[in-house]
Amino acid sequence: MKSVNLCLTGFGRVGRAFSRLIDEKKEACRIRYGLDLRLVAVLKSDGGLCSIKKAGLSGISDLRGDSLHGHPAWHRDLRVDKILSEFEHGCLVECTPTDLKTGDPGLSYMRKALKKGWHVAAASKGALVLKFKELAATARRKNAIVKYSAATAAALPTLDTGQISLAGAEVTRIDGILTGTTNLILSRMEEGLSFEEALKEAQDRGIAEPDPSLDIDGWDTACKILLISNAVVGTDLQLRDIRRAGIRHVTGEELRTARNNGTSLKLLGRMTRKKDKTRAEVGLFALDSGHPLFSISGTNKGVTFLTDTMDRVTVSGGKSGPSGTAAALLKDIINIYRA
Amino acid sequence: MKSVNLCLTGFGRVGRAFSRLIDEKKEACRIRYGLDLRLVAVLKSDGGLCSIKKAGLSGISDLRGDSLHGHPAWHRDLRVDKILSEFEHGCLVECTPTDLKTGDPGLSYMRKALKKGWHVAAASKGALVLKFKELAATARRKNAIVKYSAATAAALPTLDTGQISLAGAEVTRIDGILTGTTNLILSRMEEGLSFEEALKEAQDRGIAEPDPSLDIDGWDTACKILLISNAVVGTDLQLRDIRRAGIRHVTGEELRTARNNGTSLKLLGRMTRKKDKTRAEVGLFALDSGHPLFSISGTNKGVTFLTDTMDRVTVSGGKSGPSGTAAALLKDIINIYRA
Repeated sequence: MKSVNLCLTGFGRVGRAFSRLIDEKKEACRIRYGLDLRLVAVLKSDGGLCSIKKAGLSGISDLRGDSLHGHPAWHRDLRVDKILSEFEHGCLVECTPTDLKTGDPGLSYMRKALKKGWHVAAASKGALVLKFKELAATARRKNAIVKYSAATAAALPTLDTGQISLAGAEVTRIDGILTGTTNLILSRMEEGLSFEEALKEAQDRGIAEPDPSLDIDGWDTACKILLISNAVVGTDLQLRDIRRAGIRHVTGEELRTARNNGTSLKLLGRMTRKKDKTRAEVGLFALDSGHPLFSISGTNKGVTFLTDTMDRVTVSGGKSGPSGTAAALLKDIINIYRA
Repeated sequence: MKSVNLCLTGFGRVGRAFSRLIDEKKEACRIRYGLDLRLVAVLKSDGGLCSIKKAGLSGISDLRGDSLHGHPAWHRDLRVDKILSEFEHGCLVECTPTDLKTGDPGLSYMRKALKKGWHVAAASKGALVLKFKELAATARRKNAIVKYSAATAAALPTLDTGQISLAGAEVTRIDGILTGTTNLILSRMEEGLSFEEALKEAQDRGIAEPDPSLDIDGWDTACKILLISNAVVGTDLQLRDIRRAGIRHVTGEELRTARNNGTSLKLLGRMTRKKDKTRAEVGLFALDSGHPLFSISGTNKGVTFLTDTMDRVTVSGGKSGPSGTAAALLKDIINIYRA
């Protein structure tokens, strides 16, 4: 049995879902993978919980966000440095909100964790989008692993498929419906809802990002196609390299016209590569019925890789929202430690 | 740079495609993965080629099957034991025909290779279907790895998805269109071809197994759902546990009637699990348009996993035929050595 110390940073919807999932899956992970997952710390900006008990922290997902303060293990001003010095090894589970300008606070957490040789499983995108090369270099030097399935379409296995299942093949194009929110909004608008009504539904169902402009203006998709392309194809894309259009100005009329013409308008992240020339963009594309993503509707996501030796491989589905993201974090942690 | 000795057993369509792929991808594997792949031996039943040169064997895919005899490196009666004693470590690339009664000759090759601590990448199914537990136990004892993507729908990443991408999730159902030949035949019959005409097309296109009954009577699908289920869910299925029906008696009429009713008749391998009770079957199922495999037609394949924490995840596509199988072997080899 391998003991795995987990330090969760951020306790919003994803962090909370992750702590619940660990409670549910603890026993199964022991039996199936020989891993004893111990949630040793949960950090928020003003303090956090820390437990040196063998069982780790449990049952905290039912506490309300602010009420971590009342938990017996609460320490005001608890910092990640304290956790990293208390526990020699472990995995940082990074669930703070995505900040595409500074990458913080995730960036600072990840830097510190990797420098101590801790592994990282990340759900937040900012640090990865802005500073991946630096983080990867630190990880290599320290023999640590950084995984970020949760930041690249959660339970839809975009990175696993591209990096593992297509090993040896050359990927010449990636098409991805990578944001459940925008795909749901487009599907509902096609059915007759207004943009505002459809957005509200996505928010009510808890699958929209807290700041809807991240989704709606294509930032979320841009981040994901950037991360996937850089990881799978080895490109060095920056956000500014990606031509980006969102769905704010699309009309139900346009969507229905496309459908009547036998096509389906989808917000795609697309990367194409020809002779080392890369082009990356986010925007609305009219897919015909032969495209594997044609039928991906509602909150479903999907990604199609075009390759030289394996033809076209598509993955679709996978739970959206906080619990799907939590499941992707757990998957990455298992794969880090059973490797 | 890591040197990887490859011993290819079997030189039919798959073995030949694999040797061609190694020629094509040798340089890319050095650059991308730091792996120096050396084809050190090719074995047929009556002898084989062996090369101790640094570059290994190359250019042999253009030789006609029988003419390996004329190759300067040909040794009559060359046996795998000789190769295993000549090279301390390496990977057996098992491409002999599938024999579901004895598992041989693949079984004997794999046993010997694993006992010497060699890794195995397998395209043949017999030994895996009949003796997987024994082979896995030997591998564990010797710290060797057995991978068999090529035997479980080739370039369609069934095992990677189930074992890696769904780690931590509980799989409660697997639906797979796992045989390109039968799916092509059904698609063509729906379009009006007779069973015989459709079968001939599959054979002419080189995607049918040498013995078509393996495909048509559902054996191939049964083997694959068995291997996938045992690997992903941890079941202990034997072939006799699988209720199996093929496509020999389906009529174009039935296929078109299903289509007119808004469904699509597909040959599926299906595994369902409820409270540790497993049911596995192969047969024709009428899928409605909401099923992710509804639109998988022609030689395409696809597999849908139903899970507890990640909902439904589907992979589809991936090249069929010998070159797709070869690409899956290369992928497994890369993942064995970069692990």
